[in-house]
Amino acid sequence: MLTVYAYSTPNSIKVPIALEELGLDYDLLAVNVRKGEQKAPDFLALNPNGKVPVLVDGEFVLADSAAILVHLAETTGRLLPADGLKRARVFEQLFFHASALSPAFGQAGFFQRLAAEPQPIAIERFSNEAKRTLSVLDGVLARRRFAAGPDFTIADIAHFGWLWRREFAGVDLDAAPNVARWYAEVEARPAVQRAIARTTALASAA
Amino acid sequence: MLTVYAYSTPNSIKVPIALEELGLDYDLLAVNVRKGEQKAPDFLALNPNGKVPVLVDGEFVLADSAAILVHLAETTGRLLPADGLKRARVFEQLFFHASALSPAFGQAGFFQRLAAEPQPIAIERFSNEAKRTLSVLDGVLARRRFAAGPDFTIADIAHFGWLWRREFAGVDLDAAPNVARWYAEVEARPAVQRAIARTTALASAA
Repeated sequence: MLTVYAYSTPNSIKVPIALEELGLDYDLLAVNVRKGEQKAPDFLALNPNGKVPVLVDGEFVLADSAAILVHLAETTGRLLPADGLKRARVFEQLFFHASALSPAFGQAGFFQRLAAEPQPIAIERFSNEAKRTLSVLDGVLARRRFAAGPDFTIADIAHFGWLWRREFAGVDLDAAPNVARWYAEVEARPAVQRAIARTTALASAA
Repeated sequence: MLTVYAYSTPNSIKVPIALEELGLDYDLLAVNVRKGEQKAPDFLALNPNGKVPVLVDGEFVLADSAAILVHLAETTGRLLPADGLKRARVFEQLFFHASALSPAFGQAGFFQRLAAEPQPIAIERFSNEAKRTLSVLDGVLARRRFAAGPDFTIADIAHFGWLWRREFAGVDLDAAPNVARWYAEVEARPAVQRAIARTTALASAA
């Protein structure tokens, strides 16, 4: 049985979405990041980076949501084209999400909501970067049904995580109609609905 | 012939390192990011995200340094194990670099050096995160010769980019002896030396 350590967070939800899409059984265990449980010694032994999610399959322990998505896609042969430009586009979007959109959304939310004192340059920098990366994604989705091409892939799952939590970043989709169309289509997938229900329940159960 | 659009930056250098390691010929073309050339319409047509590096191979255009590394490794069958835990560890480190170490180093440098006014909470936040991610990498390299295991892979190339430019982030290796040992070994590789020479020359030629 696969075990996923997670919480109701933008990165965590990516793994349950992939597992539901793939029809794999899994235990979903809460690591309450609001109480700092991701920094406890037991959890750091699983992931020295102190972040959820982590996938455990017997002796196999793997951290980082996108690395888990790649692993699940490669071991099942689904949600990731086997080769060529279609495959490269998935990695291009996975790394665009990991290195650009995700940190921008996260830091925009932190400086708007959580910083002890206002940091005006930081607020402006990250709010602008969140809007810019959203606009880049909107351009991508103007040309393609899904993030990496005509088919649903793990790149859509990665982007969905932070778009699902866009309110934290102060982002809406009014100026991103292609993202809005894509978001509605992804959110309506039965597997995504099941993953949202299980992931959201982690916070209410803790 | 492969063409790489790049500049003397932490992300750019990863691609020449991989190409030199793989023994592939390439043209290296300067995009002067200090003059904002990465935001010019011609370049945005190659990469709507407005960042170097970009790899062009005929009709095939691919952005994002790590996506390029994965593509080059998969098409040559080198620098990335074919399957199993060894392969998963490479992706774990690629995404740890892209989502954690790289943004921390970049933002630490920005708020220490480039922000128009001091933002003390932002400086502390990103300087601490740069040190924390360096410490996580030091722990990884205490257990392994290279970032993802006993062999040199594209994960080492990814980490090398920002470690090569660590001064920008205000980071030194005094408290990271395993990173220091690893850095010296990677830097001494002939292919890495050739890539540094070619990439550094982009700035002096511009």
